[in-house]
Amino acid sequence: MTPLRIWLVGFGTVGQWLARALDVHADRLAHRYGVRVSVVGLANARHGFVAREDGLDLATALDLAAGRRSIAELPGVRAWPTAIEGLRATEADVLVEVIASPPGDGEPGSAHMREALGRGIPVVTSDKWPVALHGVELAELARNRGVAFRAESCVMSGTPLLSALGEGLAGTVPIGLRGLLNATANFILTRMAGGRSYEDALAEAQAAGLAERDPAADVEGGDTVAKVMILSGLVFGRQLERGQVACRGITDIAPAELEQAAAAGARIKHVATLEFSAPDGAGDLVAARVGPEALGPDDPLARIDGTANAVVYRATPVGEVTIAGPGAGPELAGQGVLSDLIAVAQSTR
Amino acid sequence: MTPLRIWLVGFGTVGQWLARALDVHADRLAHRYGVRVSVVGLANARHGFVAREDGLDLATALDLAAGRRSIAELPGVRAWPTAIEGLRATEADVLVEVIASPPGDGEPGSAHMREALGRGIPVVTSDKWPVALHGVELAELARNRGVAFRAESCVMSGTPLLSALGEGLAGTVPIGLRGLLNATANFILTRMAGGRSYEDALAEAQAAGLAERDPAADVEGGDTVAKVMILSGLVFGRQLERGQVACRGITDIAPAELEQAAAAGARIKHVATLEFSAPDGAGDLVAARVGPEALGPDDPLARIDGTANAVVYRATPVGEVTIAGPGAGPELAGQGVLSDLIAVAQSTR
Repeated sequence: MTPLRIWLVGFGTVGQWLARALDVHADRLAHRYGVRVSVVGLANARHGFVAREDGLDLATALDLAAGRRSIAELPGVRAWPTAIEGLRATEADVLVEVIASPPGDGEPGSAHMREALGRGIPVVTSDKWPVALHGVELAELARNRGVAFRAESCVMSGTPLLSALGEGLAGTVPIGLRGLLNATANFILTRMAGGRSYEDALAEAQAAGLAERDPAADVEGGDTVAKVMILSGLVFGRQLERGQVACRGITDIAPAELEQAAAAGARIKHVATLEFSAPDGAGDLVAARVGPEALGPDDPLARIDGTANAVVYRATPVGEVTIAGPGAGPELAGQGVLSDLIAVAQSTR
Repeated sequence: MTPLRIWLVGFGTVGQWLARALDVHADRLAHRYGVRVSVVGLANARHGFVAREDGLDLATALDLAAGRRSIAELPGVRAWPTAIEGLRATEADVLVEVIASPPGDGEPGSAHMREALGRGIPVVTSDKWPVALHGVELAELARNRGVAFRAESCVMSGTPLLSALGEGLAGTVPIGLRGLLNATANFILTRMAGGRSYEDALAEAQAAGLAERDPAADVEGGDTVAKVMILSGLVFGRQLERGQVACRGITDIAPAELEQAAAAGARIKHVATLEFSAPDGAGDLVAARVGPEALGPDDPLARIDGTANAVVYRATPVGEVTIAGPGAGPELAGQGVLSDLIAVAQSTR
């Protein structure tokens, strides 16, 4: 079968996990899904972009990364100083974009995605902030060019959510969505419910390698705000600006709040909420917020503990649909990217 | 926008719900999803197949059905005695097949779907047994012709499951799947856990209109067996025969079993199980069964009550993913069909 030629922009934990999965599971993916992948361009922030038309050797690239050596040492490659230059100068069937662009402007991720989509090349990404800030624009660009734009791993990692809500529940009129979308915050609150102090719980989360690149993003809510913006944009077609999502983190929860909740049989969770003008309205988005809430024992989100995440979606006529699963981990983000890549490969075959 | 021309085969509760939704929500579907639908062929078992190239008037068709009059009274239609004859003689962009073919051979549903797929026409269906018995063959026929074959509403009704597992978790190696897949059985067992007798609980379910066309299918497990076969075929690519799914219903659960479970803090649920040769194997399906099981209080399925359904899927590397939602109701099956139809419309645009 003709291999699917991909650019892999980002060669940190997610990119390396994906490269290893594509290398180790090549035969299984070919047999089960009819998909063969050839990485024809590879980029990281430190060493720039390298390309080879007949495909890069992934095992060698992983060895170089493990030895902290440059991917420019790969044999037979052409090289550019930055990803955007390499993308502009080369060709591929799919852009897989797995860097972590910063919250301010979502660059350079947005530029990478616009470059690909503008040329009619589908995009698969785990890069949250470009999707949070420009999701509606990028999805529309993809739609206009008739190509896929998939970002499943941006929210709840490898647990399928965006397509289940956006496609699987297409046609429903939304009433509300509530979710626990940050694994680190949920882990810390679970430990605090068990009697640990915030500081101890945070230290344990950090020791377990749970924190994202910027730990503040997890505990102050920025990461969850990005996910709320992604859900709003990609599932409900409404672009939010960051300031439109009210946000309180978990850093200032008073011990009295925890005691009061426990006394009432409740649990304090860090809840993301989208509210709509349904049931009788048109299902327009009317509020978006992130913050700690005391949830009673019958709330399905109250039982989601540790690094698990969950979303409860209410809509007409389905009522309540719950999707729960693991919320973090490089192999899980990688898995979300892999499932998107398989979907794109199957649709372009 | 050019309307999507559909054949609607089946004009019972699901077909009428869908027709009403397409009629009432036409503008919303056009605005939100860019989809306009024109029903150019309509069939039911009693009155055969009618067609009109510029589209049938759905409000009139619904009025005729409400008055138990024939759809052949629709103005300006050509008519055939059976659906298969009408399908062969006319053209459309999508077949929506929402009859309930019997378990024996899955006909005439299978013939309808083969007719469409063989001509390269995508199929959306809620007709369980043809998909249970021939899912792998039908999916392969669709793949070979490059068209969609979607049956989301066949399992867990309007709750998105098949695409979430099959596409959203593509690339994972399955370990096991457990689910509560029949709303009536779960409703009865929930009432029995509350102290009611089987007979009383069944009578309440029947009074509430929960039972499927054949009530035995719900309580003896046949409906759940069909759903296990559909999951196996469409998600895992493995066609099962009915005899390969071990099955015990809920009709002969002894009061002592319920008391013993309750004493241990457990709940008796009617559980569908698929087991695979993972974690270290190739993820091949090794067992499929349906039957009552006592579930401990920490089992996520133990808390799924009433007409709710749920699936817990375990796989490498994601761990455990849970999807829960309503399991039955004509408006929910109709909603599942509608979401599939929107997906097909968007992919063929």
